[in-house]
Amino acid sequence: MEKLEEGVLNKNIAALARMVTFNESTRLEDNIIADRFIEQHQEKLDNSIVLSISGIPGVGKSSFIEALGVYLHSLGCSIAVFSIDPSSELTQGSILGDKTRMTELSSLDHVFIRPSPTSNRLGGLGINTHKNIELAKIAGYDIILVETVGVGQSETIVKNLCDAFILLLMPASGDELQGIKKGIMEVADFYIIHKADGELLNAAKLSKKEIENSVHLLKSNLNISESIFAFSSVEKLGLDIIWKSIMKFIDTKKGNKTFYATRIQQRIHWFKETYERMMLMHYLEKGKEKYKVLEDEIKAGKYISLNEIQENITN
Amino acid sequence: MEKLEEGVLNKNIAALARMVTFNESTRLEDNIIADRFIEQHQEKLDNSIVLSISGIPGVGKSSFIEALGVYLHSLGCSIAVFSIDPSSELTQGSILGDKTRMTELSSLDHVFIRPSPTSNRLGGLGINTHKNIELAKIAGYDIILVETVGVGQSETIVKNLCDAFILLLMPASGDELQGIKKGIMEVADFYIIHKADGELLNAAKLSKKEIENSVHLLKSNLNISESIFAFSSVEKLGLDIIWKSIMKFIDTKKGNKTFYATRIQQRIHWFKETYERMMLMHYLEKGKEKYKVLEDEIKAGKYISLNEIQENITN
Repeated sequence: MEKLEEGVLNKNIAALARMVTFNESTRLEDNIIADRFIEQHQEKLDNSIVLSISGIPGVGKSSFIEALGVYLHSLGCSIAVFSIDPSSELTQGSILGDKTRMTELSSLDHVFIRPSPTSNRLGGLGINTHKNIELAKIAGYDIILVETVGVGQSETIVKNLCDAFILLLMPASGDELQGIKKGIMEVADFYIIHKADGELLNAAKLSKKEIENSVHLLKSNLNISESIFAFSSVEKLGLDIIWKSIMKFIDTKKGNKTFYATRIQQRIHWFKETYERMMLMHYLEKGKEKYKVLEDEIKAGKYISLNEIQENITN
Repeated sequence: MEKLEEGVLNKNIAALARMVTFNESTRLEDNIIADRFIEQHQEKLDNSIVLSISGIPGVGKSSFIEALGVYLHSLGCSIAVFSIDPSSELTQGSILGDKTRMTELSSLDHVFIRPSPTSNRLGGLGINTHKNIELAKIAGYDIILVETVGVGQSETIVKNLCDAFILLLMPASGDELQGIKKGIMEVADFYIIHKADGELLNAAKLSKKEIENSVHLLKSNLNISESIFAFSSVEKLGLDIIWKSIMKFIDTKKGNKTFYATRIQQRIHWFKETYERMMLMHYLEKGKEKYKVLEDEIKAGKYISLNEIQENITN
């Protein structure tokens, strides 16, 4: 175990991968191994910068992360990439199946890439990803990129994971075509109209105008020119400008103290999630026979009222 | 209260609306009013047919529901429509804001339309919608249509709410463009490529072929010609054929007994959700001072380990 911990601290990729596996395990004893390691090195948790990259399937999150990651690597940064996919309980991934992704980025040194774990209930996935990020911080990765499918309830997860939130948008006209809800538009810090090349270039420019108008209505004091960009991960032009804006955003947050205050809020969020989950596990286990009585009654066709549930729990 | 209950049983729309409000209240006492009413009339819960209509924002769920609802009304059915939107916690609805929707359907007799309530944590929304459906069954609505945004974790909710699940798809080529995950493709019973008119007609035909291939891979024993349709809610052609297929599907399920067996499974699912939610509420309230101790320590910058959480809960 000491060797494993040493490996993580020395940025050994296999060691971090193994520690992440402990963290993602469904066995609490395994989770505690990762948790104890984090506790021992908690002074490093304020390091690194965490960026979330979100958007609907097909918007090109992987290719954007590859382009950004390779650029940041060229600046001398070490990079860790995690992904969250709060999708199917039956099967994972997109209809087209998993593809070999981020081939260039994954071939570089000091780059750690971890695909999506299997999802589970009660936000457990988010909890795990939060601690994965803490492990990567302790391992000393400079920039941690978190890829999420930006739909459904995921904005709560995303805004509690990162220091800056980048939303990728389709080069398509009409808000509803984006498949994006107002809530996620509100929590985003940067809006990137992706695939701004070739046939889609004009659509991307139009889309950028529309997004600028929408965002202006949502967040009137935002500096539009430093927050909304059209970008192509094929042509990769303007990454320096985007990155400069992100760094300025982070520096401003650090300057006015919201950076660390937000991180404490995030810690409280994940603590609450973990606490509730462990509480529920504890009492469900303790009361499983009483629970079974009611479940059997439903199977036999009985209607179980809220009063009966309340009594079952409290007595 | 008796008058209210009588009103619901007599298909008085205002009465059902009020009972649904009790069910959607955040106060347990209110929920119990609706719950007790359901318990008293539980023999009616096996009535009605519940259809879920799902798809990404912009696919035209409302206009499809309007077209289908008006058609079913012309056949003499009474219709209740509910919607679920597991989206923003900050603000509800699409970026374009709420529009006047389903104007023709909402003007007809024996039609009850209830928009999306505010979402809350722990699947509470789903629980409420489940009981809303039970209220509409007791009120005697023949067909209950449930509109959901078909992304993220919603397929678990959807498959536990309905007797048949209709997935609306964009007239676009390429699986990923659909913004739809494999999981939701798997749980769907019917696939409707929507907006199959005007400029999009050819795209819809192409898309139908692609969807047929995808679905064939996912569900090899499905009768493609009775499950996948291209449709326009403007031209409204072929609703009779779609409806005949849905009825045949329901009748088959009733014939081989899976219809009622599935409903019992669904009841167990929602019971479990409710039970866990009430259990957590109970013990969080009981232990809130102990919880506060740890939360304050995090605010003061301390790392709280899983072991400390476990001890806090069990001691």
